[in-house]
Amino acid sequence: MRQSKLFTKTSKETPKDEVSTNAQLLIRAGFVDKLMAGVYSYLPLGLRVLTKIQNIVREEMNNIGGQEILMPALHPKDLYDKTGRWDKIDVLFKMEGVGDKIYALGSTHEEVVTPLVQKFVKSHKDLPLSVYQIQDKFRNEPRAKSGLLRGREFNMKDMYSFHKDEADFLDYYEKSKVAYLNIFKRCGLDAIIAEADGGSFTDKLTHEFQVFTENGEDIIFSCNNCHTHRNAEIVKDKQCETCGGDLEKNKAIEVGNIFPLESRFSDSFKFTYLNKEGKAQPILMGCYGIGPSRVMGAVVEINHDDNGIIWPESIAPYSVHLISLCSESGDIKKADELYDSLTSQGVEVLYDDRVEVRAGQKFADSDLIGIPQRLVISPKTLVGDSIEVRDRETGEETIVKIKDYVQ
Amino acid sequence: MRQSKLFTKTSKETPKDEVSTNAQLLIRAGFVDKLMAGVYSYLPLGLRVLTKIQNIVREEMNNIGGQEILMPALHPKDLYDKTGRWDKIDVLFKMEGVGDKIYALGSTHEEVVTPLVQKFVKSHKDLPLSVYQIQDKFRNEPRAKSGLLRGREFNMKDMYSFHKDEADFLDYYEKSKVAYLNIFKRCGLDAIIAEADGGSFTDKLTHEFQVFTENGEDIIFSCNNCHTHRNAEIVKDKQCETCGGDLEKNKAIEVGNIFPLESRFSDSFKFTYLNKEGKAQPILMGCYGIGPSRVMGAVVEINHDDNGIIWPESIAPYSVHLISLCSESGDIKKADELYDSLTSQGVEVLYDDRVEVRAGQKFADSDLIGIPQRLVISPKTLVGDSIEVRDRETGEETIVKIKDYVQ
Repeated sequence: MRQSKLFTKTSKETPKDEVSTNAQLLIRAGFVDKLMAGVYSYLPLGLRVLTKIQNIVREEMNNIGGQEILMPALHPKDLYDKTGRWDKIDVLFKMEGVGDKIYALGSTHEEVVTPLVQKFVKSHKDLPLSVYQIQDKFRNEPRAKSGLLRGREFNMKDMYSFHKDEADFLDYYEKSKVAYLNIFKRCGLDAIIAEADGGSFTDKLTHEFQVFTENGEDIIFSCNNCHTHRNAEIVKDKQCETCGGDLEKNKAIEVGNIFPLESRFSDSFKFTYLNKEGKAQPILMGCYGIGPSRVMGAVVEINHDDNGIIWPESIAPYSVHLISLCSESGDIKKADELYDSLTSQGVEVLYDDRVEVRAGQKFADSDLIGIPQRLVISPKTLVGDSIEVRDRETGEETIVKIKDYVQ
Repeated sequence: MRQSKLFTKTSKETPKDEVSTNAQLLIRAGFVDKLMAGVYSYLPLGLRVLTKIQNIVREEMNNIGGQEILMPALHPKDLYDKTGRWDKIDVLFKMEGVGDKIYALGSTHEEVVTPLVQKFVKSHKDLPLSVYQIQDKFRNEPRAKSGLLRGREFNMKDMYSFHKDEADFLDYYEKSKVAYLNIFKRCGLDAIIAEADGGSFTDKLTHEFQVFTENGEDIIFSCNNCHTHRNAEIVKDKQCETCGGDLEKNKAIEVGNIFPLESRFSDSFKFTYLNKEGKAQPILMGCYGIGPSRVMGAVVEINHDDNGIIWPESIAPYSVHLISLCSESGDIKKADELYDSLTSQGVEVLYDDRVEVRAGQKFADSDLIGIPQRLVISPKTLVGDSIEVRDRETGEETIVKIKDYVQ
């Protein structure tokens, strides 16, 4: 992408109405635009990051047999009457439609996915099964001041699994933990698993994936002895519940969670399966959430410096930021050729070909946008048919012959 | 994909509450599930089709310089107060949030995109510009009986272009027509361009992309002489307005529309640009819509027979439906090997490996699902190391050596 064509521009001003680091940096760098509290538009650079995160999530869900579907955001009230959650989910957006219709906007999809899967699953032969979607959720959050970390509208991957017994459920639940840890690792996040409360989903303990950072909204207690992590909301003692060890208190961002739902929702819909003896048995469910938009926010909270964002290669909007400081037509031609050869090799390049912007501004923009590798091509480097290669994270700079870089 | 793992199943029953052919066939074949009137879930096969249509749309929009973004569905009321459309868009879903907040659900995005682009466009140098998104829209339709053709929640690609003068706008408007015709052609639809009314968008004439079919909701008058097409809503005469020729009346499905918005929305937001002389000038806008979910419905309305859907190759859920009638382990191994070699070659294969389903049911399922090419591997074909290749559209069958098919 030629930066001269990119319609967004960076800004030096920190947006006055944003207190979170992720929103401040993402807005200043032109990744997102704030429509109102907790509601953001994804601009070209931001959408590229979001899509890359979604694709990592998709691959890992497919790897554990998840089948991708897409359910609606508009939900009819009668499904919530069956589960008793119409008044229990406090963040549910509710709305009237034509006639006497009453809708909710999906904040989660148990009420939709359970009767949907029920239409197809009759026998033990149809189990186990897991389906997932990557879709936008709506939550009428009282406070939405954390940028992409807590949205009123936000992107979510929600998977639901269906099992014939506890052993089969637990087997899949453990597989999902591995898949989740893979996802966060691939997105450059060092996540740990913490026990937590089940909210309106389950009376059982659930598991959260948490990333430690001073900017986190959650408090996690970690045992120095047995290394169990627990969300503060379930920690009653000053010692570890498991081993009696000392607890350490740290702030963290929740980037995913998984819930054993048991037969909480299948019971509401009288959803059973026939076992080998032809007898109806309860279906056990699990639910597994990751917010790709929240992951994007968390990565920015954790990976930045005073100059801007530092994207991990895997989810960076582009791999290479090629900056041309050329003004003579011969030199510009060489910069264009370098851009063309890299893109034709499949390298994702943001090419700062802007002619009226001075070098200092280009470097500042590049640090703010945070693409992992910066290449500078200038009359000075071209003397040696070279470019300057700089690593955004380490700041390490090397001079490399163009022919060696391009191969 | 092994069909034994696919959680959806086909159904012989025509859903009682669906009157449209597209919904009947898509539900029976397991592509979509109806949550309520005008609101559908996309199941694995259906999501594959929808994604392929979206990717064709995306490619053609990128080809004419569209920059992809993603805007929210949740809109604040104050933006509609500025354009005067809060009470004018009769299908607008409205909703209360925390505090005194009032939201609409996006039925179209002029109110969001105009002030968004305004933040970045200041000068004639920033123009022209076009941005688009592929996103779900919400419309409180009084009637929603046409399956995917008229949804209360539906997928939409909406592009918005911004120009410094009429000539530049018209140039882009014509380019968009070519891109749109490419999209429909690639999706297997033979679309024509018809003049139509501008609704709440513009007082000018707009252009609709229409596909003729007896199942269409729209009435189009076509001139036998000058071949102009017009939507019935703007046809006042019995003769062609342009040349006086005779008019022919036909039903059609609208699959896309484009609107000259002039400065209707930029004026509302006082969005101007500075020309070369530094003088503020009005910005002219265009808007360009295609519903990928509606395209999916239209393709089914037009491409089906008594046995089911007939997908064009470009948007079929899979290219090949491999049906195994093998029951001996040696034969099953050969069927598995064929599946593996095809998928490793990048061929998208739905592999009917179900052992308990009889041949007749497998063939009926295959016709209903409508994958362009059916391969049958059976003890009979394996005698000659062959498979039977059948074209879904023509019914033409040939026997081909496996080694010649796989290459």
